[in-house]
Amino acid sequence: MQPNSFDVIRIPTTGPGDVSGLMALINGGKLEPSAILAALGKTEGNGGVNDFTREYAVAALCTALAPRLALTPREVESRIAFVMSGGTEGVLSPHITVFAKRSAEGGTAADEKRLSVGIAHTRNFLPEEIGRDAQIHETADAVATAMREAGIDSASDVHFVQIKCPLLTSERVQEALARGKTTVTASGYASMGYSRGASALGVAKALGEIGAGIGEASLLKDWSAYSSVASSSAGIELMHNVVILIGNSRFSASPFKIGHAVMKDAIDLPAVMQALDSVGLSVLDPRSQDRLVNIFAKAEASPNGVIRGLRHTMLDDSDINATRHARAAVGGLIGGVAGTGAVYVSGGAEHQGPPGGGPVAVIARA
Amino acid sequence: MQPNSFDVIRIPTTGPGDVSGLMALINGGKLEPSAILAALGKTEGNGGVNDFTREYAVAALCTALAPRLALTPREVESRIAFVMSGGTEGVLSPHITVFAKRSAEGGTAADEKRLSVGIAHTRNFLPEEIGRDAQIHETADAVATAMREAGIDSASDVHFVQIKCPLLTSERVQEALARGKTTVTASGYASMGYSRGASALGVAKALGEIGAGIGEASLLKDWSAYSSVASSSAGIELMHNVVILIGNSRFSASPFKIGHAVMKDAIDLPAVMQALDSVGLSVLDPRSQDRLVNIFAKAEASPNGVIRGLRHTMLDDSDINATRHARAAVGGLIGGVAGTGAVYVSGGAEHQGPPGGGPVAVIARA
Amino acid sequence: MQPNSFDVIRIPTTGPGDVSGLMALINGGKLEPSAILAALGKTEGNGGVNDFTREYAVAALCTALAPRLALTPREVESRIAFVMSGGTEGVLSPHITVFAKRSAEGGTAADEKRLSVGIAHTRNFLPEEIGRDAQIHETADAVATAMREAGIDSASDVHFVQIKCPLLTSERVQEALARGKTTVTASGYASMGYSRGASALGVAKALGEIGAGIGEASLLKDWSAYSSVASSSAGIELMHNVVILIGNSRFSASPFKIGHAVMKDAIDLPAVMQALDSVGLSVLDPRSQDRLVNIFAKAEASPNGVIRGLRHTMLDDSDINATRHARAAVGGLIGGVAGTGAVYVSGGAEHQGPPGGGPVAVIARA
Amino acid sequence: MQPNSFDVIRIPTTGPGDVSGLMALINGGKLEPSAILAALGKTEGNGGVNDFTREYAVAALCTALAPRLALTPREVESRIAFVMSGGTEGVLSPHITVFAKRSAEGGTAADEKRLSVGIAHTRNFLPEEIGRDAQIHETADAVATAMREAGIDSASDVHFVQIKCPLLTSERVQEALARGKTTVTASGYASMGYSRGASALGVAKALGEIGAGIGEASLLKDWSAYSSVASSSAGIELMHNVVILIGNSRFSASPFKIGHAVMKDAIDLPAVMQALDSVGLSVLDPRSQDRLVNIFAKAEASPNGVIRGLRHTMLDDSDINATRHARAAVGGLIGGVAGTGAVYVSGGAEHQGPPGGGPVAVIARA
Repeated sequence: MQPNSFDVIRIPTTGPGDVSGLMALINGGKLEPSAILAALGKTEGNGGVNDFTREYAVAALCTALAPRLALTPREVESRIAFVMSGGTEGVLSPHITVFAKRSAEGGTAADEKRLSVGIAHTRNFLPEEIGRDAQIHETADAVATAMREAGIDSASDVHFVQIKCPLLTSERVQEALARGKTTVTASGYASMGYSRGASALGVAKALGEIGAGIGEASLLKDWSAYSSVASSSAGIELMHNVVILIGNSRFSASPFKIGHAVMKDAIDLPAVMQALDSVGLSVLDPRSQDRLVNIFAKAEASPNGVIRGLRHTMLDDSDINATRHARAAVGGLIGGVAGTGAVYVSGGAEHQGPPGGGPVAVIARA
Repeated sequence: MQPNSFDVIRIPTTGPGDVSGLMALINGGKLEPSAILAALGKTEGNGGVNDFTREYAVAALCTALAPRLALTPREVESRIAFVMSGGTEGVLSPHITVFAKRSAEGGTAADEKRLSVGIAHTRNFLPEEIGRDAQIHETADAVATAMREAGIDSASDVHFVQIKCPLLTSERVQEALARGKTTVTASGYASMGYSRGASALGVAKALGEIGAGIGEASLLKDWSAYSSVASSSAGIELMHNVVILIGNSRFSASPFKIGHAVMKDAIDLPAVMQALDSVGLSVLDPRSQDRLVNIFAKAEASPNGVIRGLRHTMLDDSDINATRHARAAVGGLIGGVAGTGAVYVSGGAEHQGPPGGGPVAVIARA
Repeated sequence: MQPNSFDVIRIPTTGPGDVSGLMALINGGKLEPSAILAALGKTEGNGGVNDFTREYAVAALCTALAPRLALTPREVESRIAFVMSGGTEGVLSPHITVFAKRSAEGGTAADEKRLSVGIAHTRNFLPEEIGRDAQIHETADAVATAMREAGIDSASDVHFVQIKCPLLTSERVQEALARGKTTVTASGYASMGYSRGASALGVAKALGEIGAGIGEASLLKDWSAYSSVASSSAGIELMHNVVILIGNSRFSASPFKIGHAVMKDAIDLPAVMQALDSVGLSVLDPRSQDRLVNIFAKAEASPNGVIRGLRHTMLDDSDINATRHARAAVGGLIGGVAGTGAVYVSGGAEHQGPPGGGPVAVIARA
Repeated sequence: MQPNSFDVIRIPTTGPGDVSGLMALINGGKLEPSAILAALGKTEGNGGVNDFTREYAVAALCTALAPRLALTPREVESRIAFVMSGGTEGVLSPHITVFAKRSAEGGTAADEKRLSVGIAHTRNFLPEEIGRDAQIHETADAVATAMREAGIDSASDVHFVQIKCPLLTSERVQEALARGKTTVTASGYASMGYSRGASALGVAKALGEIGAGIGEASLLKDWSAYSSVASSSAGIELMHNVVILIGNSRFSASPFKIGHAVMKDAIDLPAVMQALDSVGLSVLDPRSQDRLVNIFAKAEASPNGVIRGLRHTMLDDSDINATRHARAAVGGLIGGVAGTGAVYVSGGAEHQGPPGGGPVAVIARA
């Protein structure tokens, strides 16, 4: 396999339609548009069904990049994997993280494995396939494809698998009903949980984290079935799954590396410290902040309503959805460790880590 | 001065009307009703103008304690200082912390200063006095009274001053208008900030933290004027200020002590660690959790819209008030350090610590 | 059957804990405490799972009435049927409507049927019974009991059947799980819809509005099954159903009468006018306002996402629950017709009227 | 003056980025892109500071129209007056209303005045000018310009003046502070009220509805100063005011006409009926619906906290902003009268009609 190098750049934004930071990098010669593989962003919507900041951000990026790539905006959207996660509650700060790939002409400089990225897409799903076996299996196949593309042989070298997945709207539910099909739920908000969960089980299946017997019957029921590296975000703007797999590969000449740990609950400070430690950083070492690129984590309200035996109120709050609560709280913890609010904390961690917990990955300069 | 001992007990609640935990302690002989000085609680309302969980919790406590104290519920409310802070966003867990005082018959056992509590009340305010000099000066006087009662001579021994203060409702604004008076604001939500800020400036004035020139003209304008130990919560259920001053006194035989630090912003993890250290605890020492009683902190969205140079979105969110965002985020950080969500994080830190930051106090078993 | 008279009094409130209006009527000799049968109120909470204004209002009323009835507060709650419906969005104004019953010594004065009220209770439900056949059947039995008590023989004389029903919380779901039982949903918010729907099907069954084959399998699925007079509100403060049945009876000597119509959707202005007409009132006749006592209606977002062919956004809004949207909109329409915001519009009309619509009943002075 | 004809077309949308309805009209030859003067839309955001659906909708429309007009998207935005009002609470249905102008070759067919539209822009404002005299006076000048353009001599022929105006964000407030200037408020949400109010006073000044002494000192204070035809919406996406003035002109050959009435409060059903009557429609005549094009109204929570003597809770709700409550309620009332949710009800009616009320205009086929 030909060695590649991968760059990772974090860019603050001033709003969901802001592309000025990205364009400045391109105009300044620091980023080659054709090298861009993927962009993971945090936008400042509610992260729910009617969060249009995600599709607006993608539309703005595609419109801006189109002339630089000699493509139409729609072709840009097919070529680059955009994942916009809505919701920057609390200290979280809107930003995008751009992943770029270029040929490593000098070969792999290091004797250690370095950061590598693989991308894959599933086919479009029908509304009634969302949150069911079809979504699980198609996702598992796409994860295997992405590993091959990233030059990663072993599941233990995979540290973060971001999935963008669809959700149901009233119209999509009706469209299925009109064909005599019923969707897994009629609630748009609830469908986001099903879609995220099915996507995560797909990752777990591909990486051998769950047995062959786990499928849609376990979805949102058997919380012992999970992936410790999956992160999925549901959005209104697509009907298929996009897989962005990040790990370390011996074929990579990237100046970056990635590691991860698993938060067992939403207040698991030691796990966040362990994730930092996995790439040689420490919360007690001020120089760590210069090497830190970004932290990627999932947050959720523990489904049994308690954290370490004490009641939380996230699931019973009819004013603020539980995903917003969880992002705000975990964002506060990780922001404190990272020393910055520009971290990627995404809500809704169904089957992404243990119930109430979730994966936390760190990318650092090697 | 006669030595006293002070107890501090944290009690989880199952809802704003739940008094079962407190009554079980009383029925089990572990708490003498007549010894109760104050109760600081976190209730699960929105923490805003229409958060009735605070007055409901106080009503339930007064009704339950009345027969044990041979008082009417209204007399209980006058005798015990109740401060219910609304809002348990994210990992925060509803609970109350009860402070009780009893005569220390054996004298002060320790050669170190121990936890002591003093309570004082201002007179009722008129709607137009809220957020103005009258509230600042009356509060300062009440703080001085509370210090004397607590047996504390030096401002440096004061570690946490909780104030409960009133807010404006449409009706109170109209009542003032009908008398030809204008209130500092017509917005109920905005009035909470004015009232909290004026209360904090009152504490700062009493403790010598601000100069004589600081008054209502500085309120919500000059953020360099603040108290590093004040914590104020606004509630619809009262029209005067209640002061609960907590520090260490040589006249106390309490088994507990208190310390504090100041968070300079909402992600100031080192300050939280330093507050723990001030009472001999450490986040890295698992035995610390047994000695920890509670952490008391204030949270707010930095008024300039940025945290360490990066934009936050709390102040521009028209769906969720900034106080809810800030409590969730700081609650996540402190919950991670404390290893529990049953910590007292209160929103709206105007003039309570530096802008965007706030005091963080720790009570531990000595 | 002995003739009775029934009074209906609407009392504005200044907050969920306000009982001053009711006590003034009692103190002024205008209302005999022992005559009070039921109180239907609108309180200013969010109407969702964590709306504690309902239980707070009931607690305040019971505490205030207890000494007047020589009962404990708990006994008052068992004796009087309290139904507090949370949510006064938009122009809706918090108030309670008190129903009182007294012996009509002079016999029935009128040759027309007059307002009559019957009350009945089911047994407590287990969490796993909520939203299932047990709740449907127990409710149907209670409705039949209430009709007998009201002296109403014919279903066509029943114009409004208010049910108060329980909801699931995280703790109740866990309690059932601990006994090896699964609840109909794990979401507190979703459980409110199941409970309201099962209660309404119970009413429909008792009144012969649905066939014998309709049961839990139809719940939240077959929207053609509904009652045109049922109104149910879910609350956290009880585990059984309370039935308040209101109609016209030949045994009643009440100065009031009741009529109703069915709104086919949320903008069905003609139906509201027809309901007024059924008791001899007219929106075009200004004198009607003097005779109007209150309007009782249910509101919901049409489950198919459209109203008269045009999309609404209530079901896809992750910031505000659909019940709040629907109450605000229907409250605006009925408030416009009634010329006052102190009308009883309750959210969540599952199986209460046709999908997206609901019953609207009017009580007027005869 | 040369006679012109004006078309008004209402187009439902499936989301803020949906332009398919507009493009279908253009592709079908029913609308000439170069004829488009203005587009007034309702988008499904929260209508608050962080409602990005407005700028997203404008961006999508400009991008779609650009190739049809041989302009860049930015030039389209300068040429066509886009006003997107966020917030489709309750029954309101997202849609845009397009106004197009073409030369009337046959002259004015009618002997009655017909619908005419005039557009004007102010210069960009500095943040510190928003909500102050500069905004009032520049708006008044622009209204006069728009009247001339519409061929309207008399203020009594002006029936609706829609203004799009800017708001303050944290960044804009900071930018002013950095130049030593203070803005009228530091709150983004509050700034929307100031900007809408100043714009409305500008309209009132131009139309002779207020005296010369009314200016920024009266803003949000003297509610007796108002325009009965102004409607202003604040948005994050511009820094100047856009004026769209609609009335009836003897130079117009339009098949449409416009009339208006003033709602004195949020439940003023007779005013809505009177507005219909002013263009020959009636709520009791089913044929009226065929002739109705759209209803345009402003909604607000009455600032004194009561409606016809009864308390409303909109201003004290810390979960849902008062503008959302008011739009939902007034939308419900007007939707009921119109028989459709696709009406333009915009929130925040400061100085737009009497306090708590607002203008309501109706466009109908003549």
